[in-house]
Parts: sequence; C-alpha cells; structure tokens
Amino acid sequence: MQALLIIANPNPGSFAHAMAAAATAVLQRPGIDIVTHDLYAEGFNPVQPVGEFGNTRSDDPLIEAHCAHLAAADLILVFHPNWWSQPPAIMKGWIDRVVRLGTAYRYPEGVGAAGSPQGLLKARAALVFNTSNTPPEREAAIFGDPLEGIWKKSVFALCGVTRVERRMFGPIAASTPEQRRMWLDEVGRLTSDALAHAG
Amino acid sequence: MQALLIIANPNPGSFAHAMAAAATAVLQRPGIDIVTHDLYAEGFNPVQPVGEFGNTRSDDPLIEAHCAHLAAADLILVFHPNWWSQPPAIMKGWIDRVVRLGTAYRYPEGVGAAGSPQGLLKARAALVFNTSNTPPEREAAIFGDPLEGIWKKSVFALCGVTRVERRMFGPIAASTPEQRRMWLDEVGRLTSDALAHAG
Repeated sequence: MQALLIIANPNPGSFAHAMAAAATAVLQRPGIDIVTHDLYAEGFNPVQPVGEFGNTRSDDPLIEAHCAHLAAADLILVFHPNWWSQPPAIMKGWIDRVVRLGTAYRYPEGVGAAGSPQGLLKARAALVFNTSNTPPEREAAIFGDPLEGIWKKSVFALCGVTRVERRMFGPIAASTPEQRRMWLDEVGRLTSDALAHAG
Repeated sequence: MQALLIIANPNPGSFAHAMAAAATAVLQRPGIDIVTHDLYAEGFNPVQPVGEFGNTRSDDPLIEAHCAHLAAADLILVFHPNWWSQPPAIMKGWIDRVVRLGTAYRYPEGVGAAGSPQGLLKARAALVFNTSNTPPEREAAIFGDPLEGIWKKSVFALCGVTRVERRMFGPIAASTPEQRRMWLDEVGRLTSDALAHAG
C-alpha cells in the first residue's frame, strides 16, 4: 500500500506543511509506504519544455521519478494554497508534466485527442487540502470555486480516481490556534477514512 | 495607448503564436505601442520564491518589467493553450508573480486579505485566446470550462478590467487550414473591437 503526498508551498512553516505532517502521522502504520514530494524543497521545474508536450517520457529524471510514484500510488494527497482560485504554478506544472499520457490516462484505440480518455491510475482515492485567505462563501459565490472542478473532474476523474475529498481551510491569515488544531484533526480524520477506500 | 500581449506556448510555431501575430497586425497603427512577452522565449520563471508571496516587489528584474508593462497597459491580450482546464504553469506563474498586490489590486484601508480587494489596473479591456483539443461542448459539460471563470472573474474582474472577451478555438489537432484562417480572422476582428473599449 503506497501513499503519495505532494506539497506546494514556498514556506516550509506553512499550514500546508502542517497538514502534510498531520496526514503523515495517520499514515505511519505497518504496510503503508509513504512517498513525499515537497515541490519547492526539491526544486521541481514546472515548465514543460518544448518537445515534452504530448510525450510519454521526460529528459528530467525527477519527472520520471514522480511519474513512477504517481503510477504506483494507492492513495494521493495534495496540499497547496489557493492562489487565484488555482494551484500555485509549481503545482500546476506537476499536473502538466507528471499527470501525463501513458502514465495517468490513455486514449483507447481509434480515439484521438478530442475524445474521452481512459484513466490509468491505480489509486482509487485522493485527498486535496487547500488553504485560502478568501472566505469559502466568497470563493464559491464570486469565483465559482474553480479548484473544486479542476481537481475532482478535470484531473482526478479523468485519470480514474473516483473518490476525491477536498477541503479548503481558511481564512488562514486570521485563524486562531484552536481553529488550526481543529482543521489538522479533520485532515487526520479524512486521511484515516480515505485509507479504507484506497488501492 | 499601450497594448500588452502575453504568449504562453512552448512551440514557437503554435497557433497561439499565429493568433498573437494576427492581433499584432491589427494593432500596428499610429499611436499604439505594442509590448509583447513570449514567456517561453524569454525564459520566464513562474515559481514564486520564498519571501516574494504577499510582497509588492521582486528581486527578479524581469518580474519588475512585467509589472510595469501590466500597470501601463490599456489593452491586455493573453494567448495560451488549455492544459487541464487551466493555463500552462508558465502562464499561471505570470498571474502569481505579475498580477500582484499594489500593481493589479489593493485592499482598501481597514480591509484585510479576507476582504474584497479593489482593482488597480488601468486597462478597461482584455482578450483571452485559448486553443484546445477538447471540444468546447465537452469542456463545458464535463469540466465546467474553468478557464472562463478564472480569467473573467478570479483575475480580470478583481483587478478592475471589466470588458473581457474570451474565445477557445479547437479542436486544434484536427483543424483544417480553412478553419484556422477563420479563427485568425475572428482574432483580428475581436482585437479591433476591443480597441474601442480599451484605456
């Protein structure tokens, strides 16, 4: 059983990192391999170079390692702040380069790029934990909460991951230690629940 | 009168580049300054470094040049492919780093990060031209066309740009020369229309 954690926040002391630590504490059980990629810490390059688009391999060994970990994962956990109702660029580049053709999805024979791809991921469950300074009501009412559809429909459903739970905690800037403790508890609870559906 | 063009496609022979050329041909009139940034060609770094988040200045001179051009623009034109219902990472990083506090928006006195910011951009009009291999009906029905809300609401409306036209042309991979000619004509027409509302 393999759990994959992807963290995208420039600040190592961020709440995204605290949430990843809370999830890790739950995942530390016999029989679970935990693979963690802190994109900022590892210097992940999100810019898909000329020639890589549409391809099924990369000249960047870190991309190949990421793809192998994504393909092997039974449970995927993603941690990032809401920047402009979207993931930070470094996280977007993880989607562009790692969630790739032949690794995460394929086109059935006779179906071209304009058709419906088939998901290839082994993981049956994913968790997306976002932080935000925009209140959830404002994010939903004014902006339509694009992150919800992006992660659940555009990315995970397309790749065959059917059970996706997502939470957006905030406003972070003005949160109290008590709120943050409750949010970390919820991260732990959701991680524990997801284990029952993974793989 | 200043027009700002931002292009994000790894392939210099892409249809995004052809659309930018079609728009440029319309903009080449007396009294219009055209500033073009081809993000891939100029090696734009989309990763917001530790310490830059929330700030109003950057140590990267290219970011400062971008911010000056954005603030001075009367008309903004954006060209990029639809990757995962979102902009490519390099374009997302332009939003993260260039469309910044103090340049593109501000919080009125007494309003914190959880409140509603005020737009600061001088431009009154923007055009967003996307290419896609996903048919428009599928993008809307299955994924909810997140790019529409991202550009119009989350980015431009927040920064005070009220008239935003967006087109997504495709499927590109299977398009005919005749279709592409018609699409380029439409780019020219929309650019010409937008000039009447810019500034």
